[in-house]
Amino acid sequence: MRLLRVGPTGAERPAVLDDDERLLDLSGVVGNLAPTPENLRAIREAVTGGRLPLLESGQRVGAPLPRPGKIVCIGLNYRDHAAETGATIPAEPVVFLKAPHTVVGPHDTVLVPRGSVKTDWEVELAVVIGRTARYLDSTQEALACVGGYAVSHDVSEREFQLERGGTWDKGKNCETFNPFGPWIVPADEVPDPQNLSLKLWVNGELRQDGKTSDMIFGIGEIVHYLSRFMVLEPGDVINTGTPAGVALGQPDPKPYLRAGDVVELEVEGLGRQRQVLEQA
Amino acid sequence: MRLLRVGPTGAERPAVLDDDERLLDLSGVVGNLAPTPENLRAIREAVTGGRLPLLESGQRVGAPLPRPGKIVCIGLNYRDHAAETGATIPAEPVVFLKAPHTVVGPHDTVLVPRGSVKTDWEVELAVVIGRTARYLDSTQEALACVGGYAVSHDVSEREFQLERGGTWDKGKNCETFNPFGPWIVPADEVPDPQNLSLKLWVNGELRQDGKTSDMIFGIGEIVHYLSRFMVLEPGDVINTGTPAGVALGQPDPKPYLRAGDVVELEVEGLGRQRQVLEQA
Repeated sequence: MRLLRVGPTGAERPAVLDDDERLLDLSGVVGNLAPTPENLRAIREAVTGGRLPLLESGQRVGAPLPRPGKIVCIGLNYRDHAAETGATIPAEPVVFLKAPHTVVGPHDTVLVPRGSVKTDWEVELAVVIGRTARYLDSTQEALACVGGYAVSHDVSEREFQLERGGTWDKGKNCETFNPFGPWIVPADEVPDPQNLSLKLWVNGELRQDGKTSDMIFGIGEIVHYLSRFMVLEPGDVINTGTPAGVALGQPDPKPYLRAGDVVELEVEGLGRQRQVLEQA
Repeated sequence: MRLLRVGPTGAERPAVLDDDERLLDLSGVVGNLAPTPENLRAIREAVTGGRLPLLESGQRVGAPLPRPGKIVCIGLNYRDHAAETGATIPAEPVVFLKAPHTVVGPHDTVLVPRGSVKTDWEVELAVVIGRTARYLDSTQEALACVGGYAVSHDVSEREFQLERGGTWDKGKNCETFNPFGPWIVPADEVPDPQNLSLKLWVNGELRQDGKTSDMIFGIGEIVHYLSRFMVLEPGDVINTGTPAGVALGQPDPKPYLRAGDVVELEVEGLGRQRQVLEQA
């Protein structure tokens, strides 16, 4: 079961792609696609009931959550990526935030910011919170707070992020910098989220090819850890880090993104994104 | 004219305190208090019209915007505060984000996080965006995007912020860490936002006593600068930094906040907050 939103920007409706690849309208069932136990139960009952209106396929796909409550990102969470950026392996998760307004649909245009010469890509496994996480006692409790998984593209501008002082946020919050989706898969339908391949291509050339088994901090550890520092709420998104292969990690001249480039990315079992870059 | 929300948590209604100190119900006029030109015009017309229902005074005051789209913070923006923390004067604004769920009302309880030994205070002038700011050309254009001003308390946990690796975000996003309000004053009713006093007391003792004239980067510069890195939208909030006097800047043993402490803060002309600390 894949939960998605289809339609023109700003006028999407919630939908479900069922196991027979039928696109069914959920707008009479749920207001949003936060993978809470209540939402998932209502959606499953509606799908089983067999009376959901069939939607036309081929529509634009929006982000499954257009404005998450927050987007928490884990930096340097793959050893090979930490190494390629010259960073040491973190002793605790590196945490930063991405503003909700950065979210766009999985196939929407990504804008190279004005003045940017170092726009970079990052394929990531996104964790979507289904139950409130606050001062959790264990990684087991933490995993029970995960409602679903999705693909996230943590687009980054490296000069803004690393060469302008302060924290990383200047390079992470440009408009269109978080393509998200195409859909959320409920957590109980992802057999082993810690054993998924992540791949990203630029203009058809494979640039990232990792496995979620190589995370330094696993999903349960991340959610458990974060719950000490902030309350995670249903519909919040965690970008869990990117494996090696970003432009920043390449020999000079580094192949940063420019208008006209095409980025495609996928996480095993969670669908695929494709973005064309344009100049802001 | 002061724009505020009154009522029990989660059931506040928008209201206006007029120049005669009457509390008037705005729930039939606007859905939210983002200080857009449209909202301000509608509110002023309604106040002038004289037919707004009178509300009972003495109600709880919530945050004027319960969940801003984003909260952007400027770090180390007063020379004396940069000096007291041992930081160098930044060459460009230091930018970080605070998640919208940290916002509480101006007199609500602030929770000392579990495991915290370094919970600290920061009185700040908050800028509230009224018009979309994107790739602005000048500080004049930037100031025209400011819709209003308010008091913001950027509560911070210094061990989480500075001693656990990564960016500052672990120490800035604990629940209740952004008391906001009591109200928004429209920008055109604040004669000189760059000449306001900021004060904060802990248990009656004056701890911070600054002036917005001492900002390193002024309001127009900040909004202009940010518009190169992100789109600011109506209702977004910018915490513009804090002057000297935080606990981190005191001699040992530093007077970090503990359950039972009372913090009061005010920005000249923008109202006053009071919080009692409790243990999370």
